[in-house]
Order: sequence, then C-alpha cells, then structure tokens
Amino acid sequence: MSQTVNRRILLAAKPSDKLEPQHFSIEDAPIDEPGAGEILIKILYLSLDAANRAWMQGRTYRDEVGAGVVMPGNALGEVVTSNDASFAPGDLVEGDLGWQSYAVHPAQDLQKRTTHEPLSHLLGILGITGKTAYFGLLDVGRPKPGDVVVVSAAAGAVGSVAGQIAKHMGCQVIGITGSAKKCNWITQTLGFDGAINYREQKVGKALREACPQGIDVYFDNTGGDILEAALFSMKQGGRIVCCGAVSQYDTGNPGPGPRGVPGLIVTKRLTMEGFVVMDFAPRWAEAELRLAQWAEAGYIHVAEDILEGLEQAPTGLIGLLAGENTGKRLVKVA
Amino acid sequence: MSQTVNRRILLAAKPSDKLEPQHFSIEDAPIDEPGAGEILIKILYLSLDAANRAWMQGRTYRDEVGAGVVMPGNALGEVVTSNDASFAPGDLVEGDLGWQSYAVHPAQDLQKRTTHEPLSHLLGILGITGKTAYFGLLDVGRPKPGDVVVVSAAAGAVGSVAGQIAKHMGCQVIGITGSAKKCNWITQTLGFDGAINYREQKVGKALREACPQGIDVYFDNTGGDILEAALFSMKQGGRIVCCGAVSQYDTGNPGPGPRGVPGLIVTKRLTMEGFVVMDFAPRWAEAELRLAQWAEAGYIHVAEDILEGLEQAPTGLIGLLAGENTGKRLVKVA
Repeated sequence: MSQTVNRRILLAAKPSDKLEPQHFSIEDAPIDEPGAGEILIKILYLSLDAANRAWMQGRTYRDEVGAGVVMPGNALGEVVTSNDASFAPGDLVEGDLGWQSYAVHPAQDLQKRTTHEPLSHLLGILGITGKTAYFGLLDVGRPKPGDVVVVSAAAGAVGSVAGQIAKHMGCQVIGITGSAKKCNWITQTLGFDGAINYREQKVGKALREACPQGIDVYFDNTGGDILEAALFSMKQGGRIVCCGAVSQYDTGNPGPGPRGVPGLIVTKRLTMEGFVVMDFAPRWAEAELRLAQWAEAGYIHVAEDILEGLEQAPTGLIGLLAGENTGKRLVKVA
Repeated sequence: MSQTVNRRILLAAKPSDKLEPQHFSIEDAPIDEPGAGEILIKILYLSLDAANRAWMQGRTYRDEVGAGVVMPGNALGEVVTSNDASFAPGDLVEGDLGWQSYAVHPAQDLQKRTTHEPLSHLLGILGITGKTAYFGLLDVGRPKPGDVVVVSAAAGAVGSVAGQIAKHMGCQVIGITGSAKKCNWITQTLGFDGAINYREQKVGKALREACPQGIDVYFDNTGGDILEAALFSMKQGGRIVCCGAVSQYDTGNPGPGPRGVPGLIVTKRLTMEGFVVMDFAPRWAEAELRLAQWAEAGYIHVAEDILEGLEQAPTGLIGLLAGENTGKRLVKVA
C-alpha cells in the first residue's frame, strides 16, 4: 500500500440547529486492518445527500448519527485487500463507507459495481440518486403520459432526474426550485415545461397558474410550505410521492405539518406515499440498465457537481442543504 | 295530503368558530309543488354527520353551505307525489333532502331503498355510515387478519362499524374515544381488544403501550393531535385511512397539520389515502348485503342514537361534534 494514513472526517458535535463547519473535525489515523469477512477499500467518490443531515436528527430508516463517529455516507471505492471470497483487489464497490479515504467494511454490506465511464455516474444517475428518482416516480407516483407532474428541489440530484423521466414518458412537468438560474436550467437544458422559483414567487399562486387543471403527481423532496402549496393544487385522486423533506432537515426545530392534512387528503381523495430506495434493491439492475440507456440516448441530461478532495465534504453538504448545487453533488476523494 | 306545511331548518348564519343553536333558524313554509322530473318526499329520518359541519367551512367534495338555505343533510323519506316514472308514491328514497319535513327533489338525485326493519338502519349500518366504514377499512385500509388496526372516534357511527369489521376479519383492534364509558362500551359490547380515552390519557404513550409492535392500519376519523400520535406509532409500511377530520371541523381556525408529515411518511414508508364514499356508489349493493348479513349474524352490533323531532337536529349536530353520541345519531322526523 502506497499510503498508510486514513484521513477521516468525524461529526464532532451534533448540530442543535443549522449544520456548520465546526460540527465536523478532521483527523489522520492509521488504516485499519480488515478482519475476517472484511474488506479494505480505498474510497474514490463520496456522495453528498440531504439525507446525511436528516440522519443527525434521530432514528430514521437507519440509526441516528451521533457525535464522535466518522460521518457516514454512501461512497464508491476500490478493493485494496479482501478477506472475503466474493471480492478481489481492484473490484469497484459501493456502500456506506463514510467520509474517509480508506474504509474497512463487512463484505456483506457492500455492493459490487461494474465500471462505467465516467465513474462518478455510479453514484449519481446510476446510483442511489437515479434509482430514487426512478422508483419514486414510476413505482410510487405512477404517472401516465399526459399527467401533470410537479417536482420540488427540481434542480437537485433526485428532482432533476425524476422530472426528466416524467418528461421522457410524456408528462407535463413543472419544477419548483430556488433561483432564476436553476429555473432557467431546468426548462432550457432539462426540458421541463415550466419552473417556479419558490424564493421569488408565491408557490400556491404560481402552481394554480402553471397547473390550472391541478396536479396529478407531486414528487415531494422538500416537505413544509411547498408541500402545503402543492396539496391545495392537487387534482382529485392525485398522488404525492414522499421522497424527502429537505426543508425540515437543517434545523433543530422542524415545523408543523402542512395544513390540509388530512382534510384535503379526504376531500380530494389523495394518496401520500413514502418510500426508501433500499426497499427496491431487488430491482436495482433494472433501474441501472434503463437509466444508463436513457442517459446514453440523451433523454436524461446528467448533471454533476464534483468537489475535489475529502476536506470539501463538510462545506459541500452545508452548501447542498442551502441549495447551492445543481444536479448531483459528489466529492472526489482519490 | 294531510299536512300542508313544510317545517324547515335553515342555516341562518355561518359559524365563525363553534357551531351554536343560534346559527340555525326554524320556519314553516308552504310545501312546494314538484315540477317536471321532481318528486315530493315526506322525510322520515335525518342523518346527522360530522361532515355537515365541514360543509360550512368551504368547498369540499360539495359546494360550501352558506347562510340562508335549508341545512342540507342526508335523509330517508317516502314519496308523496312523483313526476318521474321511476318513482311511485310510497317508495322509500334516500338523498340529500335537507333538514325539513318535506322536500322536493330531482328524481335523478334520489336513491330508491328497499324497506328494512328497523327503517333507521337504512341511514346507519346500511347507509352512508356503514358503507364508509366498509369501503374505508376494506378497500382503502386493506388490513389482513392479524394486523393491528387502530380506529379513532371509535364509538362514533363510522368508527364503531369499522372497528367491528376489522375484528370480524381477525384483526387486533384498538379504539380511541373520548370517555371512560365509551371505552368500556367499545371493549365490552363491541369486542374491541383495547381502548384509549384521549381526554384522560396521553394518546402517544397509550398507543405505544397498546401496540408495541406498531400499527398496521390506522383508520382516522379525527385528524389533528390523534393523527399525529398515530403517525409516530405506525409500523413500517403501514397504511392510514383518511376518512374524516372531526377535530378540525367545529372551528374557524383549523390547526396546522400533524408533525411527522412528510418525514415519518418517508422513513416508515407509510401511505395516507383519502376517500369519499360516494366514489364507491357502483358497489353499494355489495356493501349493503354484507353489512346486513354481518349485523344479522351478530358480528356487528348496531348502535343507534335516535333523537325525536326535526327540531332536535341543530342541538343534535352540535352534540355530535362534541362527541356526546354513541353509535349512529339520527333524527326521527315523522
């Protein structure tokens, strides 16, 4: 091994309100030796996701992330040493490897990946992000061609893909995002039919104007006020895909739920349905194949925002929570 | 016709907060003559429903009820004079006939009913109430035998039936209601497995104790704090039937939505689904047949709370909103 030091970033203190750089610490430690059934992995790319912040708020679909541990996070790496017959040095693997340059990880918690050019796509359009958009839109939202689909955080990693899949299947797609630049990007580059800037416009009024017949499928990445506005514009029998609630993550004091729950759910016969992409793991090959085909064919424009160097992860996540990225934000570690 | 006067109750003023007797007025008017395609009906029973109050808050699945009109409401009556070939004097009919002793109504908006002993069951277990419980539980909630089912407003018209259907199909059923007497009634008389008195107990804690493995199906008649407490006790993949929101009806200032929306919907992969029973009209015969069989066989104990005289309707509805009834509340008009 050419390197013997593992640079790692710890969550030094749990944030009580907004996440800040001082909640993290960086340290160099010896690289651990893999035990029986374990793999030593050199990390290549780290995925930054709004969910990283949600994990600090309490138990979700995973244990709460507390202070003093290496910050968890999905990552792509290369096997250095393997104590498991399923993996060999040089294999590409994905898993919750954390914010560090090397990880020792149980073999059974790793997913082997086939190389792809560029590699970063394996954590973006062909990773959790793309699959979340794929299963969330198609299996949970189930739009039909011609449906009016609204996506929030529409310039983000998941939203940008969900909206483009909906366009590809013949839906009318409106994106909600946080700047004029992003609005322009989702309509001009991604082909959305319309865009709403939630920082400048009244979302409720803008939705009524953009979707005068109502929304068939609302793909919700934000929760909060935008979800509330969408509820009031849903069409009878409409479906709301509960994918995430980024508006509620970076705070110690999440707001109340949206007005209209459950009143509008009853009177408009709405369905709100949540999902976690890991539940679709048996069908990941299907999603990867189609997403790769759609990207190749140009139906999906793949946008990545790659930061260089592990040390960028804390400010990269903080910036993501503030909406500064367009497309999938990654950290190139090595 | 032996009588020539139509006694009718008007919504004299829209309530700005709690509904009170002075929001209604009573008057005697001549009985209208039915025009072409219209039917003159003598009203026998009036159904009192929490939804009556919700109609005053704004447009729902029907137009808002404004001041100065006969208070609408579902009712059972007997045809006096018919100007439509489908109906003959003496026929039993159901429809939105309003709070009055005689109604003139378009034939196409009436449902013909087959007589039943007692007649009141046609507006209760075999009426909107029973059908709401039937389709809400079975088609929207879709519990399986062994599932933990929680019902709010469990001693009410819909809740008491929904819980008993769930018991009949082998579920474990916990009811939430508002008095020790009702708790005793739903467990001792209706056979619920457990009961929570939301006025005396902390609902969240009581649910965690009553359903340590979590709730599979929550049949929500209340919204508000009880819905919020249920959200936190839902099992992964659980389903919430949004049937009504009685906690939010009798006020000019409905509360915010429950905390946990959409966060818990995502992390627990929950589904919240609303419905309006009218959407199931093509299958009403199925529901009536089975509900009649189940009542006959004793699987469902039919509880009715019948007030005597049209004049009781205002205070009867006000009391229903305060939770004073047990089972289906009706007004016997004639």
